[in-house]
Amino acid sequence: MSQITDPAPVGAFPRLDWVDDLLTPALRAAVESLPTAERLVAGYHRGWWGADGAPRVSACGGGKAVRPALALLSAVAVGARPAQAVPGAVAVELVHDFTLLHDDVIDGDALRRHRPAAWSLFGTPAAVLTGDALLVTALNTLAQAPAGRADAAVRELVGTLLELVVGQSHDVAFETSHEVSVAEYLAMAAGKTGSLIGCACALGGALAGADSVRVSGLREFGRHLGVAFQCADDVLGIWGRTAHSGKPVGADLAARKKSLPVVAALAAPGTAARRLRELYRAPHPLGDAEVDLARHLVEEAGGRRAAEEEARRQTAAALRSLSLARPAADAYRQLHDIARAMTRRRS
Amino acid sequence: MSQITDPAPVGAFPRLDWVDDLLTPALRAAVESLPTAERLVAGYHRGWWGADGAPRVSACGGGKAVRPALALLSAVAVGARPAQAVPGAVAVELVHDFTLLHDDVIDGDALRRHRPAAWSLFGTPAAVLTGDALLVTALNTLAQAPAGRADAAVRELVGTLLELVVGQSHDVAFETSHEVSVAEYLAMAAGKTGSLIGCACALGGALAGADSVRVSGLREFGRHLGVAFQCADDVLGIWGRTAHSGKPVGADLAARKKSLPVVAALAAPGTAARRLRELYRAPHPLGDAEVDLARHLVEEAGGRRAAEEEARRQTAAALRSLSLARPAADAYRQLHDIARAMTRRRS
Repeated sequence: MSQITDPAPVGAFPRLDWVDDLLTPALRAAVESLPTAERLVAGYHRGWWGADGAPRVSACGGGKAVRPALALLSAVAVGARPAQAVPGAVAVELVHDFTLLHDDVIDGDALRRHRPAAWSLFGTPAAVLTGDALLVTALNTLAQAPAGRADAAVRELVGTLLELVVGQSHDVAFETSHEVSVAEYLAMAAGKTGSLIGCACALGGALAGADSVRVSGLREFGRHLGVAFQCADDVLGIWGRTAHSGKPVGADLAARKKSLPVVAALAAPGTAARRLRELYRAPHPLGDAEVDLARHLVEEAGGRRAAEEEARRQTAAALRSLSLARPAADAYRQLHDIARAMTRRRS
Repeated sequence: MSQITDPAPVGAFPRLDWVDDLLTPALRAAVESLPTAERLVAGYHRGWWGADGAPRVSACGGGKAVRPALALLSAVAVGARPAQAVPGAVAVELVHDFTLLHDDVIDGDALRRHRPAAWSLFGTPAAVLTGDALLVTALNTLAQAPAGRADAAVRELVGTLLELVVGQSHDVAFETSHEVSVAEYLAMAAGKTGSLIGCACALGGALAGADSVRVSGLREFGRHLGVAFQCADDVLGIWGRTAHSGKPVGADLAARKKSLPVVAALAAPGTAARRLRELYRAPHPLGDAEVDLARHLVEEAGGRRAAEEEARRQTAAALRSLSLARPAADAYRQLHDIARAMTRRRS
């Protein structure tokens, strides 16, 4: 989530140095346990070093690590020390990297976090195998958590992975499908984005030894938050200053991606929606003028408003779920701040 | 393993119809639980239907399913009904398919089981995502095994997956490495081939509720058997009538793959080894005459004999390990027959 370019004062996204302090050594150890070739690709992908393995001075660490932060804070929320959730924090970040590496291959996206995507530098075989290695390392990281909690943690991730790949499958299928309903979009986003963020929160609770009611509240908090984030990110992808993943703004429209504002607009009545449907039927990628027109039509057909409302609804549902986990007050405040930072309007 | 073309009488490979009867419905259900696009690719890959989804009359079911057979027989070996091991049988077959789909992408192999590889028909993105989906479905299949046994089964597979990807990584690295020792080759084969066959046997025991000593004996039996099979298959890939995976005989040599006979020959003293090293340094793939010469040089340098001896050693170690599992007599006989069929000289 390094892509968030926010007009609010610097620091509005909660600074959690202690998250980095706990996460980074464990994440480094996990990546450095990989065979040489996959270690190079994984560390490049995270921004730790260049394609030649030379450390980058301005290494930002591959994003804000919001999933690990949620895992650690979820442990605090149920009264534990955040260190107990470190295997969960590492696992969800590794799984996130697995999805990014494979998704860039699948979508043919040549840019990631403002740099060449791993496959475009190292080749598709290296990106595929590195993704596999990160996924498997994530599972092993959880399997090595303290006995009595490891099995539940692995099970949590295994269920999440199924949702993730089904969500990714639907996302790919949407590109060739003329009709996608808002409900289908939300189910896809719940799988592709909500499941892993929900898993991060649930793992934090589970590794801290919380009971199933609290773990479930944390999981639902994360799931709704993930969908809310995806809705907000879709808006940013069309009207923001920098789209998600370091891709240029408008890339989603140029590729005629069925993000939520588009899906909502395409399903709307009226002239703007009709013209948008015609534009989206064109056999070629859209040029700059067409992207500008599409952006205008999506807004006029109510797509932006619909996506922003959905983000608000999902955020509210997230916070209601969080209260079921009976979080400690300080952790609640921090989780609440992260939720706001992930989903507020940024343009 | 549909590739075994054996001069011995038909039926020398044990016919285990009851394995198919137990495996097929559960495997079908698992594949049919996938989203539409991945279901099509997975079933094509297994030989169940063509690229258009039309059932194949002569569908042979994607090989002899030796891993599932080993899982089911391992349950019988520790005194259980084979049905108890069905989730393990399904999981190892799904993981095997995951590795084949991704390996064909990674190696650029356009043929699999005498048909176009999935990626060459459906595209790399489809093959990558289908592989991911099969891996994740395998984990979920085990996670849904009866409570009390599911967690141990998932843990067994998770550890195996780490060995698998490390083994595949080393196999890829070998292609660009001039020096590979026999020890390095055997470690690679233990990861890439031995780990999953060992996992099949261990899962059969674990799902049957066997104690850890018996499970460990079964696991080691399968690991050694897997390495033995890989050694024998490497020999077949150079001197057999049909190489593994439905690729033409000599393909390994043409691509200058570092299979065991080659690794052993390259490390040998003498003129033949020296000439082979020169041939393997050529910057181009080998032509037919060069492949014939390489085959001759590998044999003269002792590579074939070394690989056949290693296969015998590993088979003997496998059978010693099996006895530690104190298998029921009838199951022992059947496991022994499978081991012999997987590793005997076939040319």
